[in-house]
Parts: sequence; C-alpha cells; structure tokens
Amino acid sequence: MKARVHVTLKNGVLDPQGKAIGHALGSLGFSGVGEVRQGKFIEIEIAESDAAKAKAQVKDMCEKLLANTVIEDYRIDVDA
Amino acid sequence: MKARVHVTLKNGVLDPQGKAIGHALGSLGFSGVGEVRQGKFIEIEIAESDAAKAKAQVKDMCEKLLANTVIEDYRIDVDA
Amino acid sequence: MKARVHVTLKNGVLDPQGKAIGHALGSLGFSGVGEVRQGKFIEIEIAESDAAKAKAQVKDMCEKLLANTVIEDYRIDVDA
Amino acid sequence: MKARVHVTLKNGVLDPQGKAIGHALGSLGFSGVGEVRQGKFIEIEIAESDAAKAKAQVKDMCEKLLANTVIEDYRIDVDA
Repeated sequence: MKARVHVTLKNGVLDPQGKAIGHALGSLGFSGVGEVRQGKFIEIEIAESDAAKAKAQVKDMCEKLLANTVIEDYRIDVDA
Repeated sequence: MKARVHVTLKNGVLDPQGKAIGHALGSLGFSGVGEVRQGKFIEIEIAESDAAKAKAQVKDMCEKLLANTVIEDYRIDVDA
Repeated sequence: MKARVHVTLKNGVLDPQGKAIGHALGSLGFSGVGEVRQGKFIEIEIAESDAAKAKAQVKDMCEKLLANTVIEDYRIDVDA
Repeated sequence: MKARVHVTLKNGVLDPQGKAIGHALGSLGFSGVGEVRQGKFIEIEIAESDAAKAKAQVKDMCEKLLANTVIEDYRIDVDA
C-alpha cells in the first residue's frame, strides 16, 4: 500500500521559499499570481494492507518524524 | 483559483532525503516500510478562473521555473 | 563578488529532516552520531565589489526573502 | 567533534530553487544579482575525536546517504 503525506507550513508561518517562487513568477511575466506556499510531499510504501491501520501508522510517523507539528500541518492519503 | 503542483524526482533518480526518512522510520521501530520518496508540493493562487487556462499557465510555470525537468516530474491539479 | 549564506533553524526548533538523517545514519551502522541539523546554503553572485556594502545588501536579502527570522538564523560570508 | 557538510548541485545541473530566489531578488529591487544556487548544509555531531578519521567517516556518510553524487557535490569540514 502506498501512503502519500503532504507536510505544509501552518497558516501564518512565513514561507521564504514560497515567497521567492511568487516573486520569481511575477518577474518572469506571469500575471495574477497570488500567494505561493511550498511544502513537502512524501510517498511511503508500507506493507500494511488495511487502509485504516496504514493511516494510523503513518499518522504516528508524522508525529514522530516527518513533521514539526509546532509549525507544520500534515495530511495523509492512503490507497483505497 | 488554486493550483497544486507536485514536483517529484523521476524514477531512477536517487533520493537521499527519501532514503534517510526510510532508514529513520525503520530505526524508530516502524516495520514493513518500503521505498520512501520525497518531493515538493507547491500551492499557487492564480487569478485565472478558467481551469484549462489556469492549468496551461501553471504548466508553463513548471517548465520555466518550478521543476528541473531533466530529473524531476511534475503534476498539476487545479480546483474544478 | 560571491556571497554565501547559511540559513539554519534556531536552537530549540525541531528539525525533522535532520532527525531523519541522524536516525538513518545510525541504522546504516554509523556509531557515535549525535545531533544532526539540516539547513540551507545559498550562493549569490553580486555585482557589488565593496565587501561591507555587499554584506549589508545580502543581510537585507536575508531579512526580506531568504530566511524566516522567527524560526531561522542566517550567517553571511562574502569573499574578501 | 562537529562536521559540517555542504551538498550542492553540480555545475550544469539546473537549480529551480536558486533560480526562483534570483528572480525574486530582482523583483524585490535588488540590482546586480547574478547566479543564485541553493544547496543543503548539514551539521553532524560525531563522537570521533580524530579529525582525519572523522572526515573519512563523514565522507562515507555522504557517499551512502547524504548526497546524490550523480547530480550533487559535497564538501566536508571538521573542527580542528
């Protein structure tokens, strides 16, 4: 089973990388670009075949390793 | 309209960050963890309200700025 | 002139990436590995030829774009 | 002993992140900005007290985990 995790900065946490991209897009001539935010996307192959258990396991991974939950949110998707 | 872009390393391109996470998960006691890959996730607010046009615009952003298409793939989703 | 900027997480800010590397090194058999921290390293070519002025300019870049000074520190080196 | 590792993209490998920063600096009004490249900076506490041995150990870490040597270079510094 494959789990997909999005780790994103919480609202209100300044994102220099996203800001750089936003400015760069404007300077390259793209108009109408508003806020840009950059996060991480992590794909994990796990042996667990029960979706609910897999999700619980990956939630534990996020809390223990993948995210800094003080400044970051995470979202987990597992294959049905 | 919001566009969401996933930039991931192409298959076959070694991913040290993903590898580190994979090993770390094993060392933290998570069993059954296979390959781990880490990519970038970029959210972009764009003024364009036509989904097809928005997607074309973001594709152009990917080719010109967001991805290194020699080693990275990208996937674009726009709100319906 | 070339400026080199190190952007690092402040002490006390949890660093999931560094933690993953630390655990991975242990799991790969490296012993005696203590804390690991991961930051960014940015090299910037600037036209300014006066070192003090170049440094001031890059400090301004750090404050305005390169670092999130709430959670990150930065250090600037310019060629003599 | 503390080891400091710089992992940078090889010359010739396109660096979207660095490019974004370069464009963004221009758009923020900084003039005279040339090429910008972004790499990683990793600090590792190691128990080894012999500088040569520490460096050899960290070189091994770079080859096995920290860098993708196909597209990245690394540089190691250890405290004297």
